Amino acid sequence: MAGHYDPNNIFTKIIAGDIPSHKVFEDDVCISIMDIMPESRGHVLVIPKQGSRNLIDADPEVLGDVMKRVQSIAVAVKKAMHADGILLRQSSEEVAGQTVYHLHFHIIPCYAGQRRNRHGEVKTSEEDLIEICEHIKSFL
Amino acid sequence: MAGHYDPNNIFTKIIAGDIPSHKVFEDDVCISIMDIMPESRGHVLVIPKQGSRNLIDADPEVLGDVMKRVQSIAVAVKKAMHADGILLRQSSEEVAGQTVYHLHFHIIPCYAGQRRNRHGEVKTSEEDLIEICEHIKSFL
Repeated sequence: MAGHYDPNNIFTKIIAGDIPSHKVFEDDVCISIMDIMPESRGHVLVIPKQGSRNLIDADPEVLGDVMKRVQSIAVAVKKAMHADGILLRQSSEEVAGQTVYHLHFHIIPCYAGQRRNRHGEVKTSEEDLIEICEHIKSFL
Repeated sequence: MAGHYDPNNIFTKIIAGDIPSHKVFEDDVCISIMDIMPESRGHVLVIPKQGSRNLIDADPEVLGDVMKRVQSIAVAVKKAMHADGILLRQSSEEVAGQTVYHLHFHIIPCYAGQRRNRHGEVKTSEEDLIEICEHIKSFL
């Protein structure tokens, strides 16, 4: 049913630590992990711990708190990756590109002269993910 | 110079009322206006009154406050336009698609079976903008 939040989703399992991820950041409000199908090198997700389906049903207070983290992480990603810009994107519902129905924000570094991959077009190697993750962490 | 905020931009003029716009919402924190080159019917922008170039240099407190407005406006746009989803996007720097260097968020309604226009591909008529603007306002 559209609009319904189902806590049985991959991001709650990643938050709980039941599914492994490459964590850039974690506090009481959110986690930030490497996207394993990145649109560019250094593409990370910011995922609030409090469950909501997407932007439409999120708790406004949580949303405010999450955005401060989104900013800090975007700044760190831009510096760490020497990116020329940052694209911030959040999709609500399938027609907008949402694939996991637990609110998340995409932080996508953009590089001059490089087109971005389509989501799912490129899978980054485990070694690369670990290296980029550690590098971004060192800027946070 | 990248990273520099220049208050002499079209959005500060719209905020000041020196350039006309179709305003969906205004309070002390931000304005929300119809995008005149919409990617879909009902595409609006949310623009903080406090000047910053983009996400990178924004005041974190302002950012938190703005996001609560972004959510309320997204909910209203979705209902008013009977949209199937909402795409939220914010571009920092030209390579990410930024064209006006004053922080703003795009709220783009998505409709099943309809592709979105490229930014600038379609200009909505003045009559349509007024009608859609008034309709969205009635949901806020």
